[in-house]
Amino acid sequence: MDRPTVTAKILDAKVRKGLKWSAIADKLGHSKEWTTAACLGQMTFSKAQAEVAQGLFDLTDEEAAWLQIVPYKGSLPGAVPTDPLIYRWYEIVSVYGTTIKELIHEEFGDGIMSAIDFSMDITRSPDPKGDRVNVVLSGKFLPYKTY
Amino acid sequence: MDRPTVTAKILDAKVRKGLKWSAIADKLGHSKEWTTAACLGQMTFSKAQAEVAQGLFDLTDEEAAWLQIVPYKGSLPGAVPTDPLIYRWYEIVSVYGTTIKELIHEEFGDGIMSAIDFSMDITRSPDPKGDRVNVVLSGKFLPYKTY
Amino acid sequence: MDRPTVTAKILDAKVRKGLKWSAIADKLGHSKEWTTAACLGQMTFSKAQAEVAQGLFDLTDEEAAWLQIVPYKGSLPGAVPTDPLIYRWYEIVSVYGTTIKELIHEEFGDGIMSAIDFSMDITRSPDPKGDRVNVVLSGKFLPYKTY
Amino acid sequence: MDRPTVTAKILDAKVRKGLKWSAIADKLGHSKEWTTAACLGQMTFSKAQAEVAQGLFDLTDEEAAWLQIVPYKGSLPGAVPTDPLIYRWYEIVSVYGTTIKELIHEEFGDGIMSAIDFSMDITRSPDPKGDRVNVVLSGKFLPYKTY
Amino acid sequence: MDRPTVTAKILDAKVRKGLKWSAIADKLGHSKEWTTAACLGQMTFSKAQAEVAQGLFDLTDEEAAWLQIVPYKGSLPGAVPTDPLIYRWYEIVSVYGTTIKELIHEEFGDGIMSAIDFSMDITRSPDPKGDRVNVVLSGKFLPYKTY
Amino acid sequence: MDRPTVTAKILDAKVRKGLKWSAIADKLGHSKEWTTAACLGQMTFSKAQAEVAQGLFDLTDEEAAWLQIVPYKGSLPGAVPTDPLIYRWYEIVSVYGTTIKELIHEEFGDGIMSAIDFSMDITRSPDPKGDRVNVVLSGKFLPYKTY
Amino acid sequence: MDRPTVTAKILDAKVRKGLKWSAIADKLGHSKEWTTAACLGQMTFSKAQAEVAQGLFDLTDEEAAWLQIVPYKGSLPGAVPTDPLIYRWYEIVSVYGTTIKELIHEEFGDGIMSAIDFSMDITRSPDPKGDRVNVVLSGKFLPYKTY
Amino acid sequence: MDRPTVTAKILDAKVRKGLKWSAIADKLGHSKEWTTAACLGQMTFSKAQAEVAQGLFDLTDEEAAWLQIVPYKGSLPGAVPTDPLIYRWYEIVSVYGTTIKELIHEEFGDGIMSAIDFSMDITRSPDPKGDRVNVVLSGKFLPYKTY
Amino acid sequence: MDRPTVTAKILDAKVRKGLKWSAIADKLGHSKEWTTAACLGQMTFSKAQAEVAQGLFDLTDEEAAWLQIVPYKGSLPGAVPTDPLIYRWYEIVSVYGTTIKELIHEEFGDGIMSAIDFSMDITRSPDPKGDRVNVVLSGKFLPYKTY
Amino acid sequence: MDRPTVTAKILDAKVRKGLKWSAIADKLGHSKEWTTAACLGQMTFSKAQAEVAQGLFDLTDEEAAWLQIVPYKGSLPGAVPTDPLIYRWYEIVSVYGTTIKELIHEEFGDGIMSAIDFSMDITRSPDPKGDRVNVVLSGKFLPYKTY
Repeated sequence: MDRPTVTAKILDAKVRKGLKWSAIADKLGHSKEWTTAACLGQMTFSKAQAEVAQGLFDLTDEEAAWLQIVPYKGSLPGAVPTDPLIYRWYEIVSVYGTTIKELIHEEFGDGIMSAIDFSMDITRSPDPKGDRVNVVLSGKFLPYKTY
Repeated sequence: MDRPTVTAKILDAKVRKGLKWSAIADKLGHSKEWTTAACLGQMTFSKAQAEVAQGLFDLTDEEAAWLQIVPYKGSLPGAVPTDPLIYRWYEIVSVYGTTIKELIHEEFGDGIMSAIDFSMDITRSPDPKGDRVNVVLSGKFLPYKTY
Repeated sequence: MDRPTVTAKILDAKVRKGLKWSAIADKLGHSKEWTTAACLGQMTFSKAQAEVAQGLFDLTDEEAAWLQIVPYKGSLPGAVPTDPLIYRWYEIVSVYGTTIKELIHEEFGDGIMSAIDFSMDITRSPDPKGDRVNVVLSGKFLPYKTY
Repeated sequence: MDRPTVTAKILDAKVRKGLKWSAIADKLGHSKEWTTAACLGQMTFSKAQAEVAQGLFDLTDEEAAWLQIVPYKGSLPGAVPTDPLIYRWYEIVSVYGTTIKELIHEEFGDGIMSAIDFSMDITRSPDPKGDRVNVVLSGKFLPYKTY
Repeated sequence: MDRPTVTAKILDAKVRKGLKWSAIADKLGHSKEWTTAACLGQMTFSKAQAEVAQGLFDLTDEEAAWLQIVPYKGSLPGAVPTDPLIYRWYEIVSVYGTTIKELIHEEFGDGIMSAIDFSMDITRSPDPKGDRVNVVLSGKFLPYKTY
Repeated sequence: MDRPTVTAKILDAKVRKGLKWSAIADKLGHSKEWTTAACLGQMTFSKAQAEVAQGLFDLTDEEAAWLQIVPYKGSLPGAVPTDPLIYRWYEIVSVYGTTIKELIHEEFGDGIMSAIDFSMDITRSPDPKGDRVNVVLSGKFLPYKTY
Repeated sequence: MDRPTVTAKILDAKVRKGLKWSAIADKLGHSKEWTTAACLGQMTFSKAQAEVAQGLFDLTDEEAAWLQIVPYKGSLPGAVPTDPLIYRWYEIVSVYGTTIKELIHEEFGDGIMSAIDFSMDITRSPDPKGDRVNVVLSGKFLPYKTY
Repeated sequence: MDRPTVTAKILDAKVRKGLKWSAIADKLGHSKEWTTAACLGQMTFSKAQAEVAQGLFDLTDEEAAWLQIVPYKGSLPGAVPTDPLIYRWYEIVSVYGTTIKELIHEEFGDGIMSAIDFSMDITRSPDPKGDRVNVVLSGKFLPYKTY
Repeated sequence: MDRPTVTAKILDAKVRKGLKWSAIADKLGHSKEWTTAACLGQMTFSKAQAEVAQGLFDLTDEEAAWLQIVPYKGSLPGAVPTDPLIYRWYEIVSVYGTTIKELIHEEFGDGIMSAIDFSMDITRSPDPKGDRVNVVLSGKFLPYKTY
Repeated sequence: MDRPTVTAKILDAKVRKGLKWSAIADKLGHSKEWTTAACLGQMTFSKAQAEVAQGLFDLTDEEAAWLQIVPYKGSLPGAVPTDPLIYRWYEIVSVYGTTIKELIHEEFGDGIMSAIDFSMDITRSPDPKGDRVNVVLSGKFLPYKTY
């Protein structure tokens, strides 16, 4: 057994039971973003969280134990994603990558925006010309140290 | 002559003159995000915008003409960026890519968040535990059509 | 269970029953292009469409449920397709890619031809020197916005 | 000297003189699609065509001679194009590649659609919801032979 | 079931029964080159050919049906083959590729040698210094069209 | 100076002087296949051959000396060639590679067809349905030894 | 001008003047590890540091200005380094990567060791069986947050 | 059976029994670093060590035998690791690789730091600003020989 | 069934029975180098050799038949081997490749050292500073022919 | 200036002066293998050795200084060499890599053959069936340590 096997079982149960990520997030008491990433095998469950998941997805004790093991992260097959929705994000990094770098350095100096001390919020924004997806990313700035 | 040559000349002038992206953006009358991407060779200048840039960066007429040609976009050398700041964004796509996909589909159905009808806003958010980089991405949802 | 498993089962049933894509499309009430892409795991079925497919291909309820989940798209193994028919399309993009880019920009300005708000129509055109494959691609033009 | 050098000089002259591909095509007496591909270094000029190009782009005799040499074709840097407009075409091949294969085989049997005995026509189609890019591809069907 | 599964079964039967490709070709009434490629999953069988193969390799009806489906072609794992015999062919393309291009263009003008309207003949040529492999490749020349 | 520089100079002279490979081969007294490969930087010239080339292409003594240095061989940029004519040869290796392997092994046992003790002959074969390119490859069979 | 050009000039001056990294570090008042990385184009100089470097390496004012621009980081050509000394480090990551992951997670839980809030110290440790290279890496632990 | 199968079984048993690497290391009488690497399939067990592991993880005799076979080493899928913790190490090699090379050569001359005659020690270092991961790497210096 | 399956079975039997390659080689009457390569799926067995192997490794008749089929050669997963022992050989080719090329050409002229008409001998050479691995490679020189 | 520039100058001088590697090695007082690798930019010269090279190849003082800087090693462009002579060595690693691994481990246990404490000797061995290239590689065995 490994974590990808448990992830596949979770997805299987979700489709079979017709669950929604937002409802699962409510049950777990966390944001839908963290919850979905966790169920997709990218985050580590606490014991309590794993028990909730066990109930929701009919997992065995061993499967629930695997949810509490830190997973090997990275959800995409291959360096460049083929799925059009995910590719658009890759394209944003490709087209705007140097722009993001310039502007963060101009404001903060040399360092990075953390992808660990990080949160994301995805919302729908109504628009007469077509609704929009709004995504807020928040990451702690970590400065390079001189030593 | 080609666009990368003009981009290099712009960067050279920016360093030599000690200009800031936010000040350049004010001169051009656009957001700092669009402005920086444009100066880095990812967006197309209108005639009026190119004239402002020509003045700011001491460009020749031919160089200003190249700013108005739609560039071959993509600002990164290689499929996986090595620069730590840009890599963190690649990592966000890698770790959260399937999560973003699931949540947008749950809210909107099958389709994508546009990277063309798109804007970005990067701000600093003070935080006693360390200031944060906040980035808001806004893209129109485009549904797949059945035909 | 996952979508590729259902796709494989659909292909298996199609061969076993000797079905044609055009006949399947008639049953689903859509174009043969959308229908084939959907059956090959690239598009999302509505509930009604999934029920028709379930009948045609002897799918279980769970398999029919998976047809209604947005799939991870991309139908080719590897960045450069080895199959000669598909490679010719890759070659067209390779040889004519910059040409297409120049001509769309000359007509429309900076932006893209959408691959989402998109349709395709493949027909046979009789020709005494050898019949021709005619393909019409139609995609909405999406302009880059200045902000 | 080599063909890419001549291509760069042509692009340079085109920007400097503010020429349009459609006007260049009229001068050469061919479609804008063939003409653009030829000027971008993908097609071979006849002597007469090269003389017209020589006049339009102020080429030397040696540069005009290179236009008549069959070029090493392929206009993109890298296997997966980063430019969003060209990527959308790569995405169409990725998402619809197996669909195109199935439908051409269903109609014609085993073989390919030629990318050599081939023509392309790009037009604008007005649409109240946003104008569309229409592209017609026409390629001779070439059957695999049994021997 | 898919074509690679049938190919594996054919190879299994060939080894178990000690068959030779030339004998199989005689049974099918075609060249040993086409026959071998077809059995290795690269060509499409007619109904009659599939029935002969069914008898030779003890295939089920469903397996025989798959032989009549146009396969996804390409017989090598990876872009550069590791097997020494096949690598030598890759090396010939690498070392002589530009030579072949120059000489075909010198004789025929711009165009290609078809790999579809194509046949191959492999023979042994006795030689006191060591027998030689002689391979004759014949492909129709297809000229690029100006349009 | 290096060999690619000399190759570029040879190509430059060939275009400028309007030479043909077959005429160059006659001057050198070898086949057009070996001659072209040698001029394209894949083969090593003898002193006498280099002197003929020096005269034909107006080379300096140092350039002629470089023709006699064994070159780093391989004429293609990238593992998979983008040029359609050369790609068709790559495709032949991809589609027929395992077939060639099987048939040579069936006739000769384990070993390879040499790409070193090797010659090639490219000819035009008139055909009412379209002239054909015929290529004869001849390579010594080299058996694997048991030791 | 760009940062790699300044880096090349610094290396050139270092060889010409016979400088040592440890001596350069003393002049800059920082560790030899940070100093070397900075001179090799991986770190950002303050104004004061750039002035010291300007004196040491005979840089122009513009070159000194570029030292204060945050560089695009990543010092290796290619994903897998070919240099044996650097490869051994890649090998350590390859062989011990999962071990490091397991042990940090066992001690700290889910999170990472920062490569930004990070320092390194390289020393020689005498050993009768052959002196050893001792490297101490120190990085802040950054925990994944649940939100 | 092969070593990866035994590694998977060990991980399975570790999760099921809730074992810690440090406790396993105590049982084996070695450092937690060597022990973890060995259990993860990167090191070779002696007969005595394999017997301890057999008891701890309920292995069969054959599985214990495989632990004593030298494994094919390398623990990561792909050239660039996607897991954030392991990637940070890759990033250290990428950003500091040339720095490490320069400083070891300055101290020792030409040669490498061995990754074979090598040990690693990972410890937690309390820090009011956030605890740190300290890693000490020790490798024998091996000089290149002139011969 | 295929050759890799038989190779896995051979390795399994070797571990289970505690056999040594040198002892297996004695049974087969060949060098330990050829024997090991053959058992690892890189060489072709004669009927007599296959019968010996059948007895040694408890193979079925069908498995023994597969040993007599010429295998698809190449024993490494990926272009750059991750295993440290094998990587050192890759490193020798990388660091010394151009040296080997220069010296063989200086002695023999243009051509190659055969990897087919080839043998290898690996021995231990005692050395007070640490025993050495001595490997003798012997390959027939094959000259390029002018034609 | 950098080392590759000096290497190119050395090769240029060698061709111009018609020097042989064996004669250069005699002048330097080392083996032809080490000498060639050093001149090709893979080894580090001592001051005395650099002075000899300076005289032989007409180098400037600065060029001679660069010979004494440890180079970034690796002499091949790309992961898989295209040159046939060098490829044969890559093929030996590919076909025999696992064999070499097995036999060294059987004789020495877990560890590697050093590519640093290493020497090579290339000789011609007359043979009536065609002279052979004999290469002796000698590397110290380095055992993995348990800690």
